[in-house]
Formats: sequence, C-alpha cells, structure tokens
Amino acid sequence: MEFRYSEKVKQMKPSIIRELLKQMNDPSLISFAGGNPAAESFPIDAIRQFSDELLSQDPIGALQYSVTEGYPPLRQAVREYANREFPVVTAQDDLIITSGSQQIIEFMTKLLCNEGDVVAVEEPAFLGAYNSIRSFGAKLAGVPLQPDGVDLACLEQVFAQQKPKFFYCIPNFQNPTGYTTSLEKRKAIYELAVKYQVPILEDDPYGALRICGEALPPIKHFDTQGAVVYAGSFSKVLCPGMRLAFCAGDADLIGKMVVAKQGSDVHTNIWAQRVCERILTQIDLDRHFAYLQAIYREKAEYMMQQLDERLSGRIHYNKPQGGMFLWVTLPDSVDAAEFVQRCLQKKLAVVPGSAFYTTDVPCQSIRLNFSTPTKEQIAKGVEIMDSVLRELGA
Amino acid sequence: MEFRYSEKVKQMKPSIIRELLKQMNDPSLISFAGGNPAAESFPIDAIRQFSDELLSQDPIGALQYSVTEGYPPLRQAVREYANREFPVVTAQDDLIITSGSQQIIEFMTKLLCNEGDVVAVEEPAFLGAYNSIRSFGAKLAGVPLQPDGVDLACLEQVFAQQKPKFFYCIPNFQNPTGYTTSLEKRKAIYELAVKYQVPILEDDPYGALRICGEALPPIKHFDTQGAVVYAGSFSKVLCPGMRLAFCAGDADLIGKMVVAKQGSDVHTNIWAQRVCERILTQIDLDRHFAYLQAIYREKAEYMMQQLDERLSGRIHYNKPQGGMFLWVTLPDSVDAAEFVQRCLQKKLAVVPGSAFYTTDVPCQSIRLNFSTPTKEQIAKGVEIMDSVLRELGA
Repeated sequence: MEFRYSEKVKQMKPSIIRELLKQMNDPSLISFAGGNPAAESFPIDAIRQFSDELLSQDPIGALQYSVTEGYPPLRQAVREYANREFPVVTAQDDLIITSGSQQIIEFMTKLLCNEGDVVAVEEPAFLGAYNSIRSFGAKLAGVPLQPDGVDLACLEQVFAQQKPKFFYCIPNFQNPTGYTTSLEKRKAIYELAVKYQVPILEDDPYGALRICGEALPPIKHFDTQGAVVYAGSFSKVLCPGMRLAFCAGDADLIGKMVVAKQGSDVHTNIWAQRVCERILTQIDLDRHFAYLQAIYREKAEYMMQQLDERLSGRIHYNKPQGGMFLWVTLPDSVDAAEFVQRCLQKKLAVVPGSAFYTTDVPCQSIRLNFSTPTKEQIAKGVEIMDSVLRELGA
Repeated sequence: MEFRYSEKVKQMKPSIIRELLKQMNDPSLISFAGGNPAAESFPIDAIRQFSDELLSQDPIGALQYSVTEGYPPLRQAVREYANREFPVVTAQDDLIITSGSQQIIEFMTKLLCNEGDVVAVEEPAFLGAYNSIRSFGAKLAGVPLQPDGVDLACLEQVFAQQKPKFFYCIPNFQNPTGYTTSLEKRKAIYELAVKYQVPILEDDPYGALRICGEALPPIKHFDTQGAVVYAGSFSKVLCPGMRLAFCAGDADLIGKMVVAKQGSDVHTNIWAQRVCERILTQIDLDRHFAYLQAIYREKAEYMMQQLDERLSGRIHYNKPQGGMFLWVTLPDSVDAAEFVQRCLQKKLAVVPGSAFYTTDVPCQSIRLNFSTPTKEQIAKGVEIMDSVLRELGA
C-alpha cells in the first residue's frame, strides 16, 4: 500500500549523528562524535538500591499508571533542585516531568507553531532541536552564536522582522560550541524577548557539568513576565537511559503541555520518576556534582592538553567552562569534509560543524565530545587528527 | 506574556477521564471509571529480580543512551511474542518499541495527517486516540460499532467519501464497549482497506486478557499488502508504569516513525526495555497469561453476577470475551448524565458513554471497569447503582 504522508514528513530528517553512531559497531573505532554522558558518572549503586527498595515497599506505586504532569513528590523535589544555585522556578510557575528534554522542544513547537511559523535558534545549535521544530513544519531562523552568546543585533532583527513563536537557546556550555552566554547577554536576551513578546525556551541540560568559572543565573532567574520556559534534564547529571527531564514556566502554557503529553505518551515512566525522587532527596547532591565535575574536568582538560601539545598553531578552540563538547576550528587550508572523512577512515569519528547549521553552509569547525571516550582513546584520537592534518598539508 | 498558541491547541482537550480521576483523592470513592489494569497481575518479583540482575551485570547498558527504534534483543523477542498465537509480524515488517501505545497513535497521525485530514475511528472508541488525532488538527469520522465489529456499510461509505488517512480500531475487547470484531468482519475490514487504500492501525492492548471464547487472528494476520500497522502494549500484560509498547508494519512507514520518535523522546527508557526483554525470554509466559486471565475472569464474572442479581431487567450489556470493560445500557427512562452525577454523589465513579463519541450525542450507556476495583468494591458499587436507579424510578 502507498501511504499518503503528511507535508510534515518532508521536513523530517534522521539525525545524521544518530545515523552515524548506528553504523559504528566497529569496536576499534574511537568516537568523539557522540553526545553520551560519561558512564562512570552514573550513580549506579543509588539507582539499584532505591529501585530495589521501591519495588519492595511500593511496587504498585512504581508500576501502575500515574498522572501526566509527573509524580507530585518528584515535581516538588525538582523545584528545589532547580533553585539550588539561583531562584529559577517561582511559586507561580507550574512544572511538568517529561520523557527527556527533547520532548519539551517538541511540545513547545506543537503548542505554539502552525506550519510555516518561525522559531528562532542559536546557530550553530543542537541538531535534535532543529529536527523537532521542523517536524511540525515550522521554519528555523538561525541567529549567529558568538563565544559570549548570541549576536544581539541579529536576534533583535529576527524578533522584529520574523516574529518567531519562540527562541530556543542553551546558555550554559552550548551544544555544539561549548560557549556560555554572558550575564550581560542573558539580561539583554530577556529584555528583547519581553520587548518583542517572543517567549524563550531556555534549555539547560549541561548546567551542572561546570569545570571552571562561576555559575551564572539562568535567563529564567530574571523573568518577571512569564516569558521564559526553563528546561532541565537528568540525562547528564544522573543518566540518560531513564529519559527524565522537566520544564517550568507560565502555568497556562505548562497546563497545555500536560494536555499535549496526555495525547503523546500519557506520562513518563513512573518507576524511573520515583527512583529519581529518592535520589534527589536522599543522596548528597553536592558530593555527586563534585564527583561529576571532577570526571568532566579531567577529561576536558586532558583533551585540551592533547590538542595543545599536538595541534597547537594549526587548530583553534575556545576553552569551555563546562559541558561535553569542544568546538574546534580547522586551518583554512583544510577542507573540513575531507578531514572528517579521512579521520573516519583511520577509525576516528568526529561531527562536521556544518551539521549544526540551519542551512547548507561551509563550516571550518568540527565538534569533539570529551565525555564518552577514555583518556587512552582521547590521546589516540588526537594522534589521528594530527596525522590527518599532516596528510592534508597542515 | 501572551503566548500565541497554534491552531492545533484549540482542538486539544484534556481527557475527561484523567481529569475526573485526578480529583478522586477521596479514598472512600469507588472507581469503575479508570482503565488501570489489575495491579495484582503485575509480575513484581520478576521485574525486581531482572532489574537487579541487570543493574549488577550491565548497568551502563541499562542507563546510557540507546537506539531510537528500541533495544534490538527486545525487538526480536517482541516479534516472537506477537506471533505466539497467529503469524502477525512478518520478516518484511519492521518493528519499533514505543513509550506506550498512545505514542503510536500520535506518530501515525503526525506522519499521515495534514490539518483537516480525516481519520476513521470506531464509535464509540478510546478517548485517548481521539485526543491524539485531534491534537494534529485532523478530523474524526466515526463509524458505528456493533457488537460484532464496525458497521461495514458505514465503513465503506466513510472510506469512499472521506478518503481517511487511516482507520483506527481495537478488534479485541474494545475500549469502551468490550466488543470483539468477528472473524468475518476482520477479513471484510481488511478488504475494504485494500480496496480504498486506507491503512489500518490495529490496536491490540487487551488481546491477552481473554476470559472466554477462542482467540481470533488479528487483521494484520491477513495482510499481504502492508496495509495494517499492528500495535501491541505491555501496559496490560506486564504493567503500565514502564510505558512499553510496540508496533509493526510496512518498513518504510516504521522507518519514518523512528525519525518521528528521534524528534520526540529520542528513545524509550532502556532500563525498562531490557527488563521487559528478560521477562519475555525468561519467564513462563503461558503461565503468566493463565494467571492474568484467571484474575480478569474472576473480576469480570463477579461484576456481571452482581449486575445480573441486582439490576437484571433494568440494564443491558453484552458479555465481553475479555478486556477490562463492560458497556452497560441504562433504561430509556433514566437520564444517563443524571445517573452518573448521582452515583458520584454516592461515591461511585463511572464514565458516561457520551465521552467516547466524536460528537455531542445523547448516549444511554456507561462504561464500567472491572479490573481496578476489588470484589468488595464491585459489590458495593453495584449496590450504589441499584439505589440510584431506584431513586430515578427505574
């Protein structure tokens, strides 16, 4: 039978990164291409202990249907969690637990966008967000991202001329660049959002993965108008396999998100929600975060040290204050696509920067992930980059 | 800030059943209104044992990111599971693991429907399906459901005149009616689907909950044209809190569903997927199903016995061959809305049948769930129904 697909399908593209990773069954391949958190950071013992306690104490509560907005004690624990460094979630805000934060981008788009509507995004930005937004027939307006945050003049121009339905951004350790939006730009972005009445979806999956510098308040911290929806995720601070995230903001919008979720997956896995609630309320989170940060700091610094030792003067990158990625710019003389191909032939996977743009543009950068590979793999991978650069005359 | 919502939002309605249930914090309230599976049927010990083994043997595999289409050994185990009574999933079919089967209805609608497109549905039918379909701006064409399946003449008329993008049906122990589509109608529905090139989404969440009669082959069993997408769920046969379902069908369509899922929740909780895989491959499923069926049979028969003893001659219902629901028709002299309200005042919740229609129509039926209440609650609830009927002169 021939299926008569919707117009939306034409805009749906598989993530080239996930497609790339699927083909990587070769165990000798080193991947700087993924976005997996460091597995050694997962609180496995706590998950195992709390899960077992839960299944012995209240199995029905962990396994029966539950409410769409999320397990109430978890929602309360998440409010405190989100506010532990800066006040972010207010008493007026509502909060929903979601099945990962990709789902939040999807719901925001579904709730706000008709086909042809515009969503403003940092550029380059998280590919998964582009795909979610496009899957509803919405259009992307990319706003150039600078090392201290989005270009404000361009953002204002896009807000004024294209009236986007919302602006999606990752102010902390952005994917793919690792850039952190400055305090000044956070305030300026918020003011532009209010001036042009463009809501912000502030995605903060990496905020806890700080390796240096001082924490900055989220844009949501400044929000007095209900203009910002703040999204957090447990994928990087606990583990991604449980698919747990949350967002908080204007109660009417979150209420509509609950209805959208009813029609989508009814509720998020309640077993995982209840284990997460026990973790948030019963483990020493400060200690867990210090442990996490030490792992990420060691890996990031090791990768930067290897790059500096072997490739100094040929490549360029801005040192990130946290997260999982380095955004590395290759010499002008090197064809980036050719570089990526030759690395793959030598069994090193990196993601070409062009993958993170809204349009087909040439891009001299590549994204390197430091959280997944071991130190040995990092050293070996940088060695491969060195040899490929030499082959290409750089 | 005023959000500029999409047109789709106007069609999104909260499930009145879920809203009703949320308000039921009163523990003295008896609910015949929910759709929760019998908690005593959950394989708690197996879940606890396999989860603990998994978290000790391969914690990273259970907690790291995974592939969108689902854990490969689970997909293989599900093929065998789906085919255990009749060949249903063929070698040519592809199969995806989803976060509950609501998500399958959502993806089918997203992939196939532009705003204004029509989806044919049984009427009355599962409210959650209506909400998913409407949330994309698609329209519902209800086809009257008879005790042996949908009215074929009406179905043909809808197929011919409205060219629906797909037809959604639950042939086994339908929600809300409990009706089972006959073998003859299954074949006839398939032939109409092929004749008019309308794909079928065959939802089979209750198939394993048979309490009497002989199993019939799913419509998908007859499919030689790739016209049927077969959806199954583990919510009723294992537990709903894990949010695990699957669908199988045309490889191109399922491939597009994988892309839609990437942009939605990336993948289904992998911990739950891996526990499910161990359950499917390591426990005695025949024994588990026999145990399940005994629980459902006992509760269904007890509710029917209570209804027959107390309300005989005043109400009417068709004895279901399985599932979780009785569809009870009240005397013509009784106002159904008034009946539901008075029951609620006496602390018995039932769902008015009108909730399951695509349009506002008067309906003399109510839906009773027998899987959630205890036998004591069933007896007490029927007693309340009796007293309300008497109050209303019936």
